[in-house]
Amino acid sequence: MDPFIYRNINGESTTEQPAEEYDTLIHMARCAVFIDGTGGFFNTAVQDINKESAIGVDSKVAFGHHHEVTLLSISTQTRVYQFDILKLGMAAFDNGLRTILEGKIQKVIHNSRPLVSCLSHKYLVKLANVFDTQVGELMIEKNFCGEFPQYMCSLTECMKVFLGLPIDRLQFNNDDKVMWMKRPLSRSLKISAAQNAVFLLPLQKCIKTKMLSSLMQQGTDIFQKIVRDASNDEAIQHIGRNYLVPREFLQLEYPDKHL
Amino acid sequence: MDPFIYRNINGESTTEQPAEEYDTLIHMARCAVFIDGTGGFFNTAVQDINKESAIGVDSKVAFGHHHEVTLLSISTQTRVYQFDILKLGMAAFDNGLRTILEGKIQKVIHNSRPLVSCLSHKYLVKLANVFDTQVGELMIEKNFCGEFPQYMCSLTECMKVFLGLPIDRLQFNNDDKVMWMKRPLSRSLKISAAQNAVFLLPLQKCIKTKMLSSLMQQGTDIFQKIVRDASNDEAIQHIGRNYLVPREFLQLEYPDKHL
Repeated sequence: MDPFIYRNINGESTTEQPAEEYDTLIHMARCAVFIDGTGGFFNTAVQDINKESAIGVDSKVAFGHHHEVTLLSISTQTRVYQFDILKLGMAAFDNGLRTILEGKIQKVIHNSRPLVSCLSHKYLVKLANVFDTQVGELMIEKNFCGEFPQYMCSLTECMKVFLGLPIDRLQFNNDDKVMWMKRPLSRSLKISAAQNAVFLLPLQKCIKTKMLSSLMQQGTDIFQKIVRDASNDEAIQHIGRNYLVPREFLQLEYPDKHL
Repeated sequence: MDPFIYRNINGESTTEQPAEEYDTLIHMARCAVFIDGTGGFFNTAVQDINKESAIGVDSKVAFGHHHEVTLLSISTQTRVYQFDILKLGMAAFDNGLRTILEGKIQKVIHNSRPLVSCLSHKYLVKLANVFDTQVGELMIEKNFCGEFPQYMCSLTECMKVFLGLPIDRLQFNNDDKVMWMKRPLSRSLKISAAQNAVFLLPLQKCIKTKMLSSLMQQGTDIFQKIVRDASNDEAIQHIGRNYLVPREFLQLEYPDKHL
């Protein structure tokens, strides 16, 4: 099934983010603070992140003989911090990141699976309070199309579909796993990771809105039609029994069962 | 099925509204502006309501020989306006309420069916952009319990379950249909309608949060377990195919089909 089919079903433009906001966010990604030692910058970053209720988290994870988180890019409302986990190792988690990743702050991540696995196995960090935008996208598609698709949506696809981002203006280097293990990291790799992180919060906002509308639309339509399209007598009869869940809802789920 | 079963499944407190906020809202309901003529107050109310992106709408509808909207109580972030539709009739809609009810402002309503029907048949007003909290509650229950319940949740039940409101401190007079046709309306009837209206926006906020968490929880759990609980080899194999929607999602929907 076309992963973007709900876009057409919905029939609405998906561009929710005005162009000038993109520029601010792209600028934020380009000014990301790169941190490869504990102390000064590290502590300031942890303090700053701890003030947020939700953060975007992009991770570069190398799977192979070992699981390795090589880089963690964390976006707040105003800044992106990039933690060089390959260099910092366990010290990054012992000095503040464990509390952030296991605590109440909501972590907005696209495809949390590799990170969950690696943090759990290598650093004994139990990632909690995750909003996975890949799961959100799946649920929207399920609600609009009636069933789950076969293929997952990549972050790049989501940024294009939900935020209407001009993908050609952004830098992407997600596929080259080996590059993320080399140091020093090139500026273009750092920027590509920071860009992923910075768009996660706007993406979450858009996905939340679409998840709600995908859930509400069918139900609201049923409610509106039931009484408005009925004759006066039918309407009175229906209103008198409106403590019952309408038959039309039950048919949503089991189309054959309640005929 | 127990309409509050998801409360136990979820295992969390439903009190989302601190006590001092209740008092502010109850005070707002007691200071509702009652409007039974066009002109001064009416125009100010319409202007004020038009500044909002979402409003709470409580309606008292008498069904019988005729459909009658007797009273419309509209809450904004800071005030409640009560329009005496029995007195104002079509003039209420021609002087600003039609634009509000048919326009972009989101109308938060608990059980919109009687109002939709009456506005459509009697006043030719097509209510649009409705967020029906009764539909929202139904969807939460569906997502937590796997199927729709038999009975709808009343507004009073929702206020208790979702907002943890101390129901004994509030005034309710929803059931007495005849009283809403009499004029002048008693102060206690006006307050009870205003109280319904004033709690709709906080109720919507809470229902939205629970709708999202009910949708996300299962999916996020599947994602987290898939890789974390796998052996190293299984995890690597899974990550290599993570463009595919995991089998566990498909089993959510058709438990027998994908075994």
